Amino acid sequence: MSTDSAPRVERVMPLSGFPEYLPADRVVEQQVLDVITRTFALHGYASIETRAVEPVERLLGKGGDADKEIYGVTRLAGGDEGRGSKDPDLGLHFDLTVPFARYVLENAGKLTFPFKRQQIQKVWRGERPQEGRYREFTQADIDVVDVGELAPHFEAEIPLVVAEVFRQLPVGDFRIQVNNRKIPEGFYLGIGLTDVAGTLRIVDKLDKIGPDKVAALLQAAGATAEQAAQCLALADIRSEDLAFVDRVQALGVDHPTLTEGLEALSAVISTGVALAPGTLVADLRIARGLDYYTGTVYETQIIGEESYGSVCSGGRYDSLATDGRTTYPGVGISIGVSRLLGLLIGRRGLTGTRSTPTVVLVALTDEGHRLQAMHIASALRSRGIAAEVAPRADRFGKQIRYADRRGIPYVWFAGGEGAADQVKDIRSGDQVEADASSWLPPATELHPTIATDQG
Amino acid sequence: MSTDSAPRVERVMPLSGFPEYLPADRVVEQQVLDVITRTFALHGYASIETRAVEPVERLLGKGGDADKEIYGVTRLAGGDEGRGSKDPDLGLHFDLTVPFARYVLENAGKLTFPFKRQQIQKVWRGERPQEGRYREFTQADIDVVDVGELAPHFEAEIPLVVAEVFRQLPVGDFRIQVNNRKIPEGFYLGIGLTDVAGTLRIVDKLDKIGPDKVAALLQAAGATAEQAAQCLALADIRSEDLAFVDRVQALGVDHPTLTEGLEALSAVISTGVALAPGTLVADLRIARGLDYYTGTVYETQIIGEESYGSVCSGGRYDSLATDGRTTYPGVGISIGVSRLLGLLIGRRGLTGTRSTPTVVLVALTDEGHRLQAMHIASALRSRGIAAEVAPRADRFGKQIRYADRRGIPYVWFAGGEGAADQVKDIRSGDQVEADASSWLPPATELHPTIATDQG
Repeated sequence: MSTDSAPRVERVMPLSGFPEYLPADRVVEQQVLDVITRTFALHGYASIETRAVEPVERLLGKGGDADKEIYGVTRLAGGDEGRGSKDPDLGLHFDLTVPFARYVLENAGKLTFPFKRQQIQKVWRGERPQEGRYREFTQADIDVVDVGELAPHFEAEIPLVVAEVFRQLPVGDFRIQVNNRKIPEGFYLGIGLTDVAGTLRIVDKLDKIGPDKVAALLQAAGATAEQAAQCLALADIRSEDLAFVDRVQALGVDHPTLTEGLEALSAVISTGVALAPGTLVADLRIARGLDYYTGTVYETQIIGEESYGSVCSGGRYDSLATDGRTTYPGVGISIGVSRLLGLLIGRRGLTGTRSTPTVVLVALTDEGHRLQAMHIASALRSRGIAAEVAPRADRFGKQIRYADRRGIPYVWFAGGEGAADQVKDIRSGDQVEADASSWLPPATELHPTIATDQG
Repeated sequence: MSTDSAPRVERVMPLSGFPEYLPADRVVEQQVLDVITRTFALHGYASIETRAVEPVERLLGKGGDADKEIYGVTRLAGGDEGRGSKDPDLGLHFDLTVPFARYVLENAGKLTFPFKRQQIQKVWRGERPQEGRYREFTQADIDVVDVGELAPHFEAEIPLVVAEVFRQLPVGDFRIQVNNRKIPEGFYLGIGLTDVAGTLRIVDKLDKIGPDKVAALLQAAGATAEQAAQCLALADIRSEDLAFVDRVQALGVDHPTLTEGLEALSAVISTGVALAPGTLVADLRIARGLDYYTGTVYETQIIGEESYGSVCSGGRYDSLATDGRTTYPGVGISIGVSRLLGLLIGRRGLTGTRSTPTVVLVALTDEGHRLQAMHIASALRSRGIAAEVAPRADRFGKQIRYADRRGIPYVWFAGGEGAADQVKDIRSGDQVEADASSWLPPATELHPTIATDQG
């Protein structure tokens, strides 16, 4: 609160990379989050949250993510000396996998394995902001983690859960691209390319720079023209069914790791064909940059928005966490909620049906009737109908405009002196007698939802 | 992922002041948050979220909160020069009021006033952690903000919304203590004490140091023994109805600000008596430390846990935000969700009925039947019943123990070869024929809830 005597006009500037929504747009975010968390729960994923900060050492040390643009956190007042000075340097988490791995180690004795968890939280990265890339953003993760060994069927379950989420969201058609890192690994080894990581890194640029440049880079790194052509031929294979197996075998390469990878990917794809036909695609180009993935990897494209990049990615890691004695393998995936909202709200202009949860505005003839109006609103709320009393006893036309500006669909008029109450649908103008202890709006109007037309 | 060849045992230590919950305790948090957000919405409070960071200047400058132990945030990589170097220094928000005031200024042209918002987010303070006081904690705020003037009836609405929340939580009896700062202000001026803020600060210590020491401090600050006694007499007044008015008037002090305060508090209390008898208490000792409150103030005690302190506090400010031209008065309150959970989970040991959302575990005779089991689970989920398939085709006893350890109440056995499916309630041992397209568990078991007995 300014106590200056001369009024000063204060300018408030948004911070680039830190998106915030107006109430009607927040409705879209809430609906998306509701679908995600409900679907995760239906599949048995228990919710947890972790603190926003981790020791910087842990953030830097895991998975070679030193380039994640970590935000450090320190008390401005300083003086941590003298109040438990052993506290480590802290930073904001840049994903939900590093904190989850730490949570598993910290609570291993109290969790039951295999442990299925969902975690929906904000994360922070100090990267340069651009469309769909933020400095503060929300991720929605599921992971299955087990002790020592993890059953492979979870690698098929993860993308099916995600497919069920996306089918309920207004994103249109999508495809979940699945690969198994053992396929390129075994293939490269089988054709005599021993620098698997280096080769993967180059092939990963295919979408950005095209096949000719990838071939040139591979040859610059020591591959023959034929080896480079083989790598490109492998990356070109995709199928919605098990056809990819024959196409790989037609390339005439043999290696035990390749065979293992083909079997694992076949298991995932055939489960997908049986339970969610058309949503999973074997795509041998997908590699995921992160070193800790060791088997199945996932990316998700919205059809028609391929250039926007993946909105949901993940994979399997043989060692999600380890305390040196016990190793915890895992498989998981992360929905980029803020990226998705950048698409739905930013690009497509979706918004909520109204800017308030209120269904009914109880009108007011004068301030003396406020208590009566509050009783009516209370009766509506007791049956789950969001209601508020008009803020001022203006003339009714003004009270109706108050409702209209917020998208509140109904205005309630108390009867008084034996007359029944009436409720007006302010869109149609229809006004009918009603009783606050029994009247119901259509179920579709009970809560704000995502508006389906832009009218 | 450690790549050391010699295994190293890694110790993971919790960070003091950053609470995290196990999945079963997280159920308690989720239930509390559900009640809060649903009740806020029923009263028309639209949800928003703000970014976690604000310019440090704004955090320091508002409401004299320079002692809030702010956490500064900086990119570890440095080099903000060259990538939009005009970015201000940032800190984590220590409450939700400062960010909300900034949000109102930033979006004033796009909001409709009076604007009712709810905001449930984490906040951070670098204070010394102790029971019920954390460095990272969740607050749940509602505020009503208007342009220029704010109707006084909102000061009665705010504690009624909170009372409705607390009635649904397993906290037992509670009382919302209400005062109006104009009462002590007018009273002090009426008896000739002109340092209102200084007097309030001393009287605020009453619960901590007792009346004798407060009287001594007041006299040390220049009050006469009689003035000090008058201050203590005022602070001693509390009533669940309008009786406080007579008791103040019996002290024989007259001042226009006092009269204004008594009228305002009477309006709040009489609305409370009419709509939520017994929950609001006029308590003339409540002052709230923060300078920006200018009228009604609130605190909330759990009966029997008074020493734990207030779990929900707030008040009215004539100037929640101002851009130098327009002033936005507001009234609001903040539920200390983490403090409340410290009481429910930490002190009282409440936990969830199970550690997973899963209601039904579909058992597995062998891996060859996994697809069949997945279809059964899918049929259950399509009707809102959380289901998962057993992770391994162990013998049934082991699969039942898997369910038991997580609190999953039902295990499903596929029939096969014309035989009907069966479902077993593993607590009673009852097993009955069932069809995945129609069977329903009791509604109370559909989601994990707060366990009502500790058995």
